[in-house]
Amino acid sequence: MNFASDNAYGVDPRIMDAILAANTGPVASYGGDSWTQETVLSLRDVFGCPLTAYLVPSGTAANALALSTMVPAHGAVLCHENAHILVDECGATTQFSGGAAMIGVASPAAKLTPQALKEQLKRFQRGHHDPKPAALSLTQASELGTVYTPDELIALSSIARENGMYVHMDGARFANALAHLRCTPADISWKAGVDVLCFGATKNGAMAAEAIVFFNEQLADDFDRQLLRGGQSLSKGRFLGAQMSAYLKDGLWLENALRANGMAARLAEGLSSVKGVRLPLPVEANLVFPFVSETLHAHLQKQGAIYHPWPPHGLGVPPAQTGERLIRLVTSFQTSKTDVDHFVETAKALPA
Amino acid sequence: MNFASDNAYGVDPRIMDAILAANTGPVASYGGDSWTQETVLSLRDVFGCPLTAYLVPSGTAANALALSTMVPAHGAVLCHENAHILVDECGATTQFSGGAAMIGVASPAAKLTPQALKEQLKRFQRGHHDPKPAALSLTQASELGTVYTPDELIALSSIARENGMYVHMDGARFANALAHLRCTPADISWKAGVDVLCFGATKNGAMAAEAIVFFNEQLADDFDRQLLRGGQSLSKGRFLGAQMSAYLKDGLWLENALRANGMAARLAEGLSSVKGVRLPLPVEANLVFPFVSETLHAHLQKQGAIYHPWPPHGLGVPPAQTGERLIRLVTSFQTSKTDVDHFVETAKALPA
Amino acid sequence: MNFASDNAYGVDPRIMDAILAANTGPVASYGGDSWTQETVLSLRDVFGCPLTAYLVPSGTAANALALSTMVPAHGAVLCHENAHILVDECGATTQFSGGAAMIGVASPAAKLTPQALKEQLKRFQRGHHDPKPAALSLTQASELGTVYTPDELIALSSIARENGMYVHMDGARFANALAHLRCTPADISWKAGVDVLCFGATKNGAMAAEAIVFFNEQLADDFDRQLLRGGQSLSKGRFLGAQMSAYLKDGLWLENALRANGMAARLAEGLSSVKGVRLPLPVEANLVFPFVSETLHAHLQKQGAIYHPWPPHGLGVPPAQTGERLIRLVTSFQTSKTDVDHFVETAKALPA
Amino acid sequence: MNFASDNAYGVDPRIMDAILAANTGPVASYGGDSWTQETVLSLRDVFGCPLTAYLVPSGTAANALALSTMVPAHGAVLCHENAHILVDECGATTQFSGGAAMIGVASPAAKLTPQALKEQLKRFQRGHHDPKPAALSLTQASELGTVYTPDELIALSSIARENGMYVHMDGARFANALAHLRCTPADISWKAGVDVLCFGATKNGAMAAEAIVFFNEQLADDFDRQLLRGGQSLSKGRFLGAQMSAYLKDGLWLENALRANGMAARLAEGLSSVKGVRLPLPVEANLVFPFVSETLHAHLQKQGAIYHPWPPHGLGVPPAQTGERLIRLVTSFQTSKTDVDHFVETAKALPA
Repeated sequence: MNFASDNAYGVDPRIMDAILAANTGPVASYGGDSWTQETVLSLRDVFGCPLTAYLVPSGTAANALALSTMVPAHGAVLCHENAHILVDECGATTQFSGGAAMIGVASPAAKLTPQALKEQLKRFQRGHHDPKPAALSLTQASELGTVYTPDELIALSSIARENGMYVHMDGARFANALAHLRCTPADISWKAGVDVLCFGATKNGAMAAEAIVFFNEQLADDFDRQLLRGGQSLSKGRFLGAQMSAYLKDGLWLENALRANGMAARLAEGLSSVKGVRLPLPVEANLVFPFVSETLHAHLQKQGAIYHPWPPHGLGVPPAQTGERLIRLVTSFQTSKTDVDHFVETAKALPA
Repeated sequence: MNFASDNAYGVDPRIMDAILAANTGPVASYGGDSWTQETVLSLRDVFGCPLTAYLVPSGTAANALALSTMVPAHGAVLCHENAHILVDECGATTQFSGGAAMIGVASPAAKLTPQALKEQLKRFQRGHHDPKPAALSLTQASELGTVYTPDELIALSSIARENGMYVHMDGARFANALAHLRCTPADISWKAGVDVLCFGATKNGAMAAEAIVFFNEQLADDFDRQLLRGGQSLSKGRFLGAQMSAYLKDGLWLENALRANGMAARLAEGLSSVKGVRLPLPVEANLVFPFVSETLHAHLQKQGAIYHPWPPHGLGVPPAQTGERLIRLVTSFQTSKTDVDHFVETAKALPA
Repeated sequence: MNFASDNAYGVDPRIMDAILAANTGPVASYGGDSWTQETVLSLRDVFGCPLTAYLVPSGTAANALALSTMVPAHGAVLCHENAHILVDECGATTQFSGGAAMIGVASPAAKLTPQALKEQLKRFQRGHHDPKPAALSLTQASELGTVYTPDELIALSSIARENGMYVHMDGARFANALAHLRCTPADISWKAGVDVLCFGATKNGAMAAEAIVFFNEQLADDFDRQLLRGGQSLSKGRFLGAQMSAYLKDGLWLENALRANGMAARLAEGLSSVKGVRLPLPVEANLVFPFVSETLHAHLQKQGAIYHPWPPHGLGVPPAQTGERLIRLVTSFQTSKTDVDHFVETAKALPA
Repeated sequence: MNFASDNAYGVDPRIMDAILAANTGPVASYGGDSWTQETVLSLRDVFGCPLTAYLVPSGTAANALALSTMVPAHGAVLCHENAHILVDECGATTQFSGGAAMIGVASPAAKLTPQALKEQLKRFQRGHHDPKPAALSLTQASELGTVYTPDELIALSSIARENGMYVHMDGARFANALAHLRCTPADISWKAGVDVLCFGATKNGAMAAEAIVFFNEQLADDFDRQLLRGGQSLSKGRFLGAQMSAYLKDGLWLENALRANGMAARLAEGLSSVKGVRLPLPVEANLVFPFVSETLHAHLQKQGAIYHPWPPHGLGVPPAQTGERLIRLVTSFQTSKTDVDHFVETAKALPA
């Protein structure tokens, strides 16, 4: 019953096989290998457009490096106040950008709204005393497992564009969003105004591989230097290429996301009939955020369930009531029905 | 006949097996796994002392992060003018340290000498107009494949200590140095005054794994934040732990280094009798730097030999003579005798 | 009727005389002059304790440099959400610290409360995913012209100390706070737990001079390098020394602050009986923040009054009502009774 | 007999008068005043072209901020190995640029040559392992008091342009260079390919005022934010404007430079016939660099002469001979004939 994180799980066997298969004789280092090159072609195919892409081992660095191409040191990144880049990466974007300000915006369910974004932009009224709003960062699926529709993305990116800002997407769970929306990858990326997408694979079956996908190819100028300098240009780059090309092959990425999302839906469905549980948010990707009673929480922990209590502040969820707390349950491509059902049964079995 | 780099080669099968074996059920993320914990214990055993260690995928980041714990933004790192951190990492140390100056010192054969270091330190005479010399960085084995003896290291680290500087060692080829010296790991690290060692595994058989080893444990204060912020804290950290623990197990690391060094010695021996070849440097690790005639260079390239011509400037080698150039030949744990002998034979076969 | 800012005014004649008097023959550069040395002695006398001090031309840089001695790149500065360092300096502290996070805390009247500070500290619960809370910055007098009492400061600095944080004070209007409190300078600085005070003179009669006063002298280690590197070490430093020593001499600084505060009190008193004006905040220093009706605002502007409308967000003041707006009126050491009375009369004369 | 530095001297009385005259009633802050606006018009007149200009108190910051508009964090500044920005500013350019590399190039007499610049550029051959050469910085007059002719500047800036680099000029002694060349200001700035000039006034009679002059106005985009964030946007900006407009008025700047240069020429002439003195460099601006015997040095010091011994390394001057050392003598707009002649007489009076 491990629902701590999608990164608590290991590597999809098909991706591991690809890693093994890439362990052949000597090849060119630093991304000059054929696996990496094949990956770029696959990404162009998946997104149906020209693009430039780089592979890195870290999602944190992917976001920070992508944003550093958009935001000067005297600029600001606007994002949701729950955004991973703001609350979970210990200032990585500020470091990689040379000092950019991170500005969190409040709105419900971890999804920015056009209204909230416009209100925030109105606050930039002190001229050069304020940093320059330079990039909008959207997380798809969001940190609360909610998903932006194509129209929602277009509405937000249009405001960004009108205000001279670039649009970044933190797609650590891009596959999960797509599995929910059943649109094309293009619909929620470049067609929706995204300049650079951090396309995650690690949470969904890879070992450590993320693609930084530049739809706006001008932003990729000199990016190889930024990668190297940022410690993200791996010498044996073939193993990043092997992971990502296997991830993209034959729809493995969507298959895994569908499975993880399905387990989250099953979990939510099961919990909906458990006493002492409230589900304040729609379950659209692979994250479930129930309020549970303190009693139930203690019971679940005692029975060996693994998950994280979630911070009660700034979540855009209705506040906890007395005697309950919010917890986060994450499903992955390897989460089993058995585990899900066992968790629900355990919850139901709480002695009255 | 690939002598381009030790990182052109793949992963040692025993390390790959360990990666596979670690691909089990869910475990704690970000280094909370048992493989990572076991690695720290193994490192303590190998070095015979208390230490704090962290695992990262990038050697560039390992060096930059390690140095950032020693050097303030207004400080300077002193290193050899051929040091990888100065000439090959596009300013990573400057970035991760928030702006430290990198000062290259000239001396023969890519090894700093006490005399050269003292001369450089005398140049810090403008008070606060100069950055503060804060760290000495030594590469073991050096970028030219030469190796510092324990006594040489002690002489240098003593000068650093007297001048209030910390000592960093870039040990991307630490195993190769040790295989040459046949002393203990402690002799060329903490016993020789090293505060932090970047202990490389990638070049010598791992996929992407380096340990940042803090013998001076106070420098590791808050280092987990710096790792995360620097994009080097991998979520599925177990695979770093699996690589490094396998690397350390049963002396695999030394076995591989001995093999690579042996191939370099064989290559140097073979080349020593080839017409048009001069070997200006001792061959102590897994790097061979011959001067070859332009004719021979063209011939080797035509026959499919893969290697890098080496920059002629600042190398601490005697200058090239007319009609010849310096090349770098790197052997690895997977370089075969066949390849070595084929290269030598090819060189010998140059038509007069 | 210029109430735009205290820095809209020029230089106190006694300070200008000191500048003239310092324009003698050649002297040592970069603060090696006698005026600067005398200033440090005067500051020790004023504060009644050992201290290290440096003079700089910019208040923004003073704050940023002072904080950079306390906060690592992976650290955070906690301050009020209206703090000048957060909303008015375009990220200077982030730049000078190499990337520190700036975290604004909400509480009434621009003064942090122990409760609000404690609540914020509780939110640091993600371990190394969060930056390290490293410094508390307090503005005395605050950006809304309110003043911390010694006890209030002690309560806040105690919390900081318990949480391993240093305490910085932005004292751009320190003199105005002191003139209100009528305690000793020590009472609201080192005796109240302040480690470093940015002691402003520019707003209160100098041309461009601020002292960075280290009560915690260890934090001043290598500070001369940081000053130079930060572009704040002026070559003809004698003119900074001349300004600051004249400012401190014979209580000029307090005399000016008393005068400015007196004009603000007079202005507030006058406005309190004007129709369409509300004063939501106590007037303790030299700032007055009335809500005025839009009609009155238009009238005042038409009559030539100069002041800034103030942002309505996050101010810790009750929200504006329909048809009114908040404005900021600043008095200075040179504001005349005539101007104050003329402003009040103008406001009163608004045709019904 | 103070020849320590041009900044050991005070303020030209005509500039001090302008400061006094600007000390009137309230005016707009942060450069919104009429003196600053007049200065920009004067600069356009002096240089005979459109330009954008900003005034700052620090020459170090002027250089660092100007370069930060040209060089990304992953870029490099190329300059002479004796350049003030490299050896005297404790890494300011690295800080303000977010981490740019500073690369010093050796050539005689502190003047870069096309040959030396081309050789350095050839060393950028490791692709993304090297930083991107992004700006060429030239000091006019140089740190050794030598002066680039318009043709020399054009030759260098052409190479920069061909290699995609911008051109920065550190003009802390621009007036002294112009006084030597007797060409137009345009001839050695924008007509010679300079993108941004840091036009110094402090060393030549101002209190603390430098203009950052953007001939390439696109580089000034968002510069007001960088100024503020860098702590160089003074609130009482009128006093910067007053200094600079007085400096430019009626040729005061050139008059002062001619005087300082004349004193240097007189000093050099006088010293040329002194026993134990060698002048290894042409004296073109206001700096004289004699080799003096240790005996003479001791004698001069004893007689109260004030000057700095100069570092013997990397100077592009012939090496010192046994028993002599290089010293730097600086003349200023206020250096008197009496002082110069007294120094020469003192030197001549050394007992045999």
